[in-house]
Amino acid sequence: MSEESTSEKLVELAKRRGYFFQSAGVYGGVGGFYTFGPQGASLKQNIEDAWRERYAVGEGHMEIDAPTIMPEPVFEASGHLEGFDDMLVECPECGTSHRADHIVEDNTDYEDAESLPIPEVEEIVAEYELVCPACGAGLAGQAVERFNLMFATNIGPGDSQPGYMRPETAQGIFVEFPRLKEYARNQLPFGVTQIGRAYRNEISPRRSIIRTREFTQAELELFIDPEDEPDLTEVEDVTVTLYPASEQHAEDGNAVETTIGEAVADGTIADPWIGYFLGISQEWYASVGVDTERFRYRQHLSGERAHYAADCWDAESEIDGNWIEIAGFAHRGDYDLSKHGEHSEDRFTIFNQYDDPKTVERATVDPDMSYLGPEFGSDAQAVVAELEALAERDRTAFDGETVTVDLEGEPSEIPVEKTGFSVDEETIAGEHVTPHVVEPSFGVDRLVYTVLHHAYREDEVDGEKRTYLALDPEVAPTFVGVFPLQRDDDLEARAEAIASDLRAAGLAITYDDSGAIGRRYRRQDEVGTPFCVTVDYESLEDDAVTVRERDSTAQKRLPIAELPDTLAALRAGSLEFAELEDLEG
Amino acid sequence: MSEESTSEKLVELAKRRGYFFQSAGVYGGVGGFYTFGPQGASLKQNIEDAWRERYAVGEGHMEIDAPTIMPEPVFEASGHLEGFDDMLVECPECGTSHRADHIVEDNTDYEDAESLPIPEVEEIVAEYELVCPACGAGLAGQAVERFNLMFATNIGPGDSQPGYMRPETAQGIFVEFPRLKEYARNQLPFGVTQIGRAYRNEISPRRSIIRTREFTQAELELFIDPEDEPDLTEVEDVTVTLYPASEQHAEDGNAVETTIGEAVADGTIADPWIGYFLGISQEWYASVGVDTERFRYRQHLSGERAHYAADCWDAESEIDGNWIEIAGFAHRGDYDLSKHGEHSEDRFTIFNQYDDPKTVERATVDPDMSYLGPEFGSDAQAVVAELEALAERDRTAFDGETVTVDLEGEPSEIPVEKTGFSVDEETIAGEHVTPHVVEPSFGVDRLVYTVLHHAYREDEVDGEKRTYLALDPEVAPTFVGVFPLQRDDDLEARAEAIASDLRAAGLAITYDDSGAIGRRYRRQDEVGTPFCVTVDYESLEDDAVTVRERDSTAQKRLPIAELPDTLAALRAGSLEFAELEDLEG
Repeated sequence: MSEESTSEKLVELAKRRGYFFQSAGVYGGVGGFYTFGPQGASLKQNIEDAWRERYAVGEGHMEIDAPTIMPEPVFEASGHLEGFDDMLVECPECGTSHRADHIVEDNTDYEDAESLPIPEVEEIVAEYELVCPACGAGLAGQAVERFNLMFATNIGPGDSQPGYMRPETAQGIFVEFPRLKEYARNQLPFGVTQIGRAYRNEISPRRSIIRTREFTQAELELFIDPEDEPDLTEVEDVTVTLYPASEQHAEDGNAVETTIGEAVADGTIADPWIGYFLGISQEWYASVGVDTERFRYRQHLSGERAHYAADCWDAESEIDGNWIEIAGFAHRGDYDLSKHGEHSEDRFTIFNQYDDPKTVERATVDPDMSYLGPEFGSDAQAVVAELEALAERDRTAFDGETVTVDLEGEPSEIPVEKTGFSVDEETIAGEHVTPHVVEPSFGVDRLVYTVLHHAYREDEVDGEKRTYLALDPEVAPTFVGVFPLQRDDDLEARAEAIASDLRAAGLAITYDDSGAIGRRYRRQDEVGTPFCVTVDYESLEDDAVTVRERDSTAQKRLPIAELPDTLAALRAGSLEFAELEDLEG
Repeated sequence: MSEESTSEKLVELAKRRGYFFQSAGVYGGVGGFYTFGPQGASLKQNIEDAWRERYAVGEGHMEIDAPTIMPEPVFEASGHLEGFDDMLVECPECGTSHRADHIVEDNTDYEDAESLPIPEVEEIVAEYELVCPACGAGLAGQAVERFNLMFATNIGPGDSQPGYMRPETAQGIFVEFPRLKEYARNQLPFGVTQIGRAYRNEISPRRSIIRTREFTQAELELFIDPEDEPDLTEVEDVTVTLYPASEQHAEDGNAVETTIGEAVADGTIADPWIGYFLGISQEWYASVGVDTERFRYRQHLSGERAHYAADCWDAESEIDGNWIEIAGFAHRGDYDLSKHGEHSEDRFTIFNQYDDPKTVERATVDPDMSYLGPEFGSDAQAVVAELEALAERDRTAFDGETVTVDLEGEPSEIPVEKTGFSVDEETIAGEHVTPHVVEPSFGVDRLVYTVLHHAYREDEVDGEKRTYLALDPEVAPTFVGVFPLQRDDDLEARAEAIASDLRAAGLAITYDDSGAIGRRYRRQDEVGTPFCVTVDYESLEDDAVTVRERDSTAQKRLPIAELPDTLAALRAGSLEFAELEDLEG
């Protein structure tokens, strides 16, 4: 029997200790929907707060909060209605639906089956005699169909209109650009963030909270002037592990360790804005507890990349030997704003005022219709259009006595004096620019999973196997567990007073008075609480308590009066537990 | 022309300053969907954090985070599939859908039309010749129909199953009770909270963010032993304004001012748990900036109350002369857990262990089948069932020689010696109890609206009309605006350094260097920023700045070095601006 993987053990622990579990289990549950229990909701909240602190507040960007149901025109413009789909194949025997591209990738040497045309996928299924993963029936001859991944619904009664659960938070930002730019006082660059739910009706949700149908995204849309470049001073020395497209294509390709400065300079990272975000994200991921030894940035291959994306990298974390995407960093060009600009009446541009107004020469025509009319009859308007286009395109054409226009393949000569050609000076204050978008997009659930997986530890304490989560204090649901040694009015009163002082010092506390002290330590170890404080009978005499560190299980006797300051310093990282003087040592 | 209402002016300000606006306006928008702009998202977040601090952390309850899409069986059990609907009437002329009960209430003396049977509503529409509010066409004869308010969707492809957007966050808690009770170590009372989106496909969404189709709830489900009573010490002296059902029924009924202690004692508040929550909520609402003079608790009339609710009160705030519901406090009995217990295989009960095991007598039968078989043939099993029921119901029936059982109306005599009747002692450790639920349920969007509305002020400053939001520092999106007097490298460097120090002191900062200083003050007034700090040329000499208070517009010169401490004290309320010594005064 093969040993349980860390993921299997983690999912078990997550259920037992209140991190996460499949929702509505009492009704059998539904694939792809998970509930975060008390510990998981707190960990997730802490990660969201840390993200907000870094990417919204820290960068000086605006955060908004938009609805999750959006009307159809939004997704007509964004392209989701037409193109946001997966390849579906249904088993003729058991009726289970599968992703055809996954079946191909799992059973053949094809790597990027998603990018293949449907008839080719159908051929591969037939040629390799691929079978249903659920029941083993042959799938050859089954139609592969496109299945749109948006959850559809109807808004309103009777006169209802179609609506969709947003497949990404980003569209809630893009559609409001004309208003958001006002809040930014029409100055580029400006960024808008959003943390919230997104929905994808996955054909085969799987792997716990890694691929769910409802999940939380934290997205930043940075609107930039296409001519602007970022200041990379802050990130140039940050060391990152990159897995560029070239290495993925190479026979013995490997991820390479480099700095952001070097990678941007040598073109490995094509876009410096992407470089900036990979740099700050490297440090942010480490701060919330991602193991940087099990973390890399992978460049999209040209086949994976959206056609409009100039450059795109994923942040990936290693989970039981597999790399999973936990964020995407894309330079989306002007795709999003242009699309909404085309589909609506509003301006998805910024008026870029020049420092000094520019004087430009403009060539125009003002043709003499009393000449053109009789001469060209019903073609006269077409001639005018040709003359206007020509004046703008090539004013030298008007240098001679006559100018030649092309009328459905027939050249015609027109006297320049009849065209009203003139070149005038015009003052221009600025120009309308469609901003480009740089988008760091984070998956919060997958990050929660990564942080837990990378924190999962097993060791032996006093001859017994111990499981604990070495969570960073920055994100741990609880920072200190406070226990009275046993049920006793004096001990409980003292312990409750300590808990209340520590809470007032801004620390997250759990109070626990049930069960043997060893079981209470074990419980906090599994939850990932960095420290525990135990009040015993001696405490009532010496005003000191036993403080236990989770990772080392080391214990020290510390004065109660100093606890709030000491623990706050341990929380802030300005003090190490090993440095503390033990009253009994 | 009538003067604009505060609501009209507020909605305009909210759009202009980034509090909230109708979503997807570039595509014409859809009724009932609003986006919170940068200021609104921050205000909403601050209110949610304050709620979490009070109702989850402060009460020691668990917070969870469940999906917004839930499968059909959940709503079969909860009753939403069958009964969560409104009365819909469609105009035969213009096709607009309306709530029939609203049309009746708005145009007749009927008050609670929602509770009337449909045929009666149809009759009233005909009798009063009610018309379409949109086009004026007569509605008599139009069918009134029930319209379910849940947004429906399909989960998964092909083998899809129906799912619904949750109409309340509560169901995400109730369905997980069997697991949540484990996290609470099977001890009552325990509470579970959730802050998140809920959805109602309203027939006529209206009044800005007061009645939307997607909104945020903050709910607490407190699971109690039906025998337990709360400790009211903390709240008994809290003064509240109550509008009990009796006063609503009375000719000249009025809201009454009283204390929680009195109201519970005299039965005005029927349930002490409800009393507890009304008390702590009174203080909490005041702390986030609800004007307690424009706030009351209204008891549900018997017609409004769900049949299972023992007692129910709404928190209401006054908006332009109307009272709107901003929270509901309901004692839901065992309705929710019983329903899910009936519809699923799981136990929605708590095993209530007795302090000491009880010894009880139990009467059982063990009939002699070799006698019953020949005697009763195919009816023998029915006789056994009757004997078992009888033993449990009335053991005196076995006191004589024979016992009489009723077999489809026919009495039969059976010798007691053939029944194997005996009475044995049994030890019972405890009993399974279905907890009751007390639910405080808060509408976050309506509270955001109330807080803004109650903070809206107009006055005159230097002969000019001024609009400002007197937001409480607890919830204001920004606490301090920091400005350099004008664009100047030295001023900007100094101002940025101050902004950074204040941010490090944990204060929410806005930095603004664009436009005349008066316009910048005006902008922060409208946003509701309590204080502004201006760095001028003198600051470079005297290391002092001008600090301006929003409400009074008073200005004082304060030393830069003391700013972080001074402003933090103003934020905490431990210091008043008027008490500060003015360097120039």
